[in-house]
Amino acid sequence: MRSEIAEQPAALRATLEALLPRVGEVRALGEQTKSLLFIARGTSDNAAVYGRYLIESHAGRLAALAAPSIATTYKRKLDLDGVLAVAISQSGKTEEIVETLAWAKDCGAATVGITNGGPDSPLAQAADLALCTEAGVEKAVPATKTYTTQLAALAVLAIGLGADVNPDDLQKVPDAVERLIAEPGDLEAVVEGLADKPGVVVSGRGLAFSTALETALKLKEACYLHAMGLSYADLLHGPIAVVDEDTPALLVAAENSPTLQGTVALAERVVSAGASAFTVGGGAALAKAGTAALNGPDLPEWVAPMGLIVPGQLLTEALARRLGIDPDAPRGLNKVTQTD
Amino acid sequence: MRSEIAEQPAALRATLEALLPRVGEVRALGEQTKSLLFIARGTSDNAAVYGRYLIESHAGRLAALAAPSIATTYKRKLDLDGVLAVAISQSGKTEEIVETLAWAKDCGAATVGITNGGPDSPLAQAADLALCTEAGVEKAVPATKTYTTQLAALAVLAIGLGADVNPDDLQKVPDAVERLIAEPGDLEAVVEGLADKPGVVVSGRGLAFSTALETALKLKEACYLHAMGLSYADLLHGPIAVVDEDTPALLVAAENSPTLQGTVALAERVVSAGASAFTVGGGAALAKAGTAALNGPDLPEWVAPMGLIVPGQLLTEALARRLGIDPDAPRGLNKVTQTD
Repeated sequence: MRSEIAEQPAALRATLEALLPRVGEVRALGEQTKSLLFIARGTSDNAAVYGRYLIESHAGRLAALAAPSIATTYKRKLDLDGVLAVAISQSGKTEEIVETLAWAKDCGAATVGITNGGPDSPLAQAADLALCTEAGVEKAVPATKTYTTQLAALAVLAIGLGADVNPDDLQKVPDAVERLIAEPGDLEAVVEGLADKPGVVVSGRGLAFSTALETALKLKEACYLHAMGLSYADLLHGPIAVVDEDTPALLVAAENSPTLQGTVALAERVVSAGASAFTVGGGAALAKAGTAALNGPDLPEWVAPMGLIVPGQLLTEALARRLGIDPDAPRGLNKVTQTD
Repeated sequence: MRSEIAEQPAALRATLEALLPRVGEVRALGEQTKSLLFIARGTSDNAAVYGRYLIESHAGRLAALAAPSIATTYKRKLDLDGVLAVAISQSGKTEEIVETLAWAKDCGAATVGITNGGPDSPLAQAADLALCTEAGVEKAVPATKTYTTQLAALAVLAIGLGADVNPDDLQKVPDAVERLIAEPGDLEAVVEGLADKPGVVVSGRGLAFSTALETALKLKEACYLHAMGLSYADLLHGPIAVVDEDTPALLVAAENSPTLQGTVALAERVVSAGASAFTVGGGAALAKAGTAALNGPDLPEWVAPMGLIVPGQLLTEALARRLGIDPDAPRGLNKVTQTD
């Protein structure tokens, strides 16, 4: 896992080089569609959350996450005329995802597959347009470089769908990730702060919500921590009750995001309740409000999630080792998950 | 909380009596729309998950949960022509929800408000059509009767949108809830099984996914338990690693659901991993696979979630008292949550 975290700058460069020339193909496929439907599970589902917020906040289209059971368990047809269905799978082999994309096509949707499994994978074969990430082989069970390259593919998708962003920002991402790997901030303090805790609340909002969910998933699968990923608005509607001296919060925000102010206020509320608030990104404002700070990338908000996850990956890897767990092979998991 | 749980049969009868005659109004508003967008937070968001699966599995329309931050934080317009936006709020006063519904109308959506706040509440006033639940005043912070009556309103909505269900099934719900309150199953065993545990994974799929999320929210807000609500498919993509002797699972299914078989298999997997699997509903098959069983309602799957949540409410109330917490007033929470 540690070496694959370090491979992310190269994986991102290779993926952007492969996919940016394909913006025109995305545009051609997407121009007849009005809304998006993402199909994914696990880490790929967290990438889909980034895609959803990116498309809604910058490309002006409604975007939603599919419930695969409607296709695979209830076997119910929906009218998906005018919908662009985007399935995301690291391996491109998860049957549930391939089957749900085929269902979407059958329901009238135009289809995109995002996968690291290559053009011959079942998912790439099933899609009208395949955007293959160039992360190389990933061996550790907790996905890292396949996740960040999925985000890069989603950024390319958004550009193809007319997002009001500067595509040149993408070129800054690999270097920013490299800097974060070298200087993640006060990792030791956060590792020690979580080492004797059964659970943690991980929260962010808007584009950074995807980072909160993905950080929580990593901490669950590789550290067996009861990590609860929540939007900070949802957190205030009930779950905030769980935050106490035994249940710290890990709060994520991009430095230049309209969600930063709310995240700073949440950090202050957590600390005033006697709990620890560890922070990721959000610049000096968020770092000052919290207990210990991990760095965020120096990137515009729309591409920041590609960097914001990196300190969470490093934290997961270091905390797992601190707890005596092999982060590369957590109990109960395989690299390709089959669900139906 | 205990007395409000007991008031649910009467609250459901009153709500159905008030709302079933309004199916025609739903039909008139909805016939020009093609997909649904639910707007909610907290417990109401879990009701929206029921609405989403119900509409997709039985009314053949795409249904999604809105990201309110797109409206309130990013202030971005989307094209919502042909969309029926349905906002759900117990109080009808949460500004974020009222503002997001107004945004949806401004974006071209037809709008419905579901609230227990009455026809004069801001949400009812903002909506083209208000479906007011008749739960009466709810005093305990953890919502119970306002949640089940929201589900009843969503069932009426589905009928108005042409769901292929038998509306008469709804008349069986209040009695089934009454029976569950009287005979919830082996509550004591589950209370004892959770009393010394820091966390629990709560899982269900399809229509019962809403019950899993709502049960997890109740256990978080009133018992401060690290309760992680997950679809069982998502659970297998990583989070299953957290299940161990200190982290039991609570698994929910309707008896006659296509998701039952997968839930039984999950219970067997949890038990074989040395953890406890407490079950809710799913008849003899699920009860047999688990460690201790709470009863489910004798109802068709499409209305079963109105009953399936009841054992979880009773469990929350009993576990809170067992832990020395006043379930009516958990720390850090108010009855009306304001988020922006």
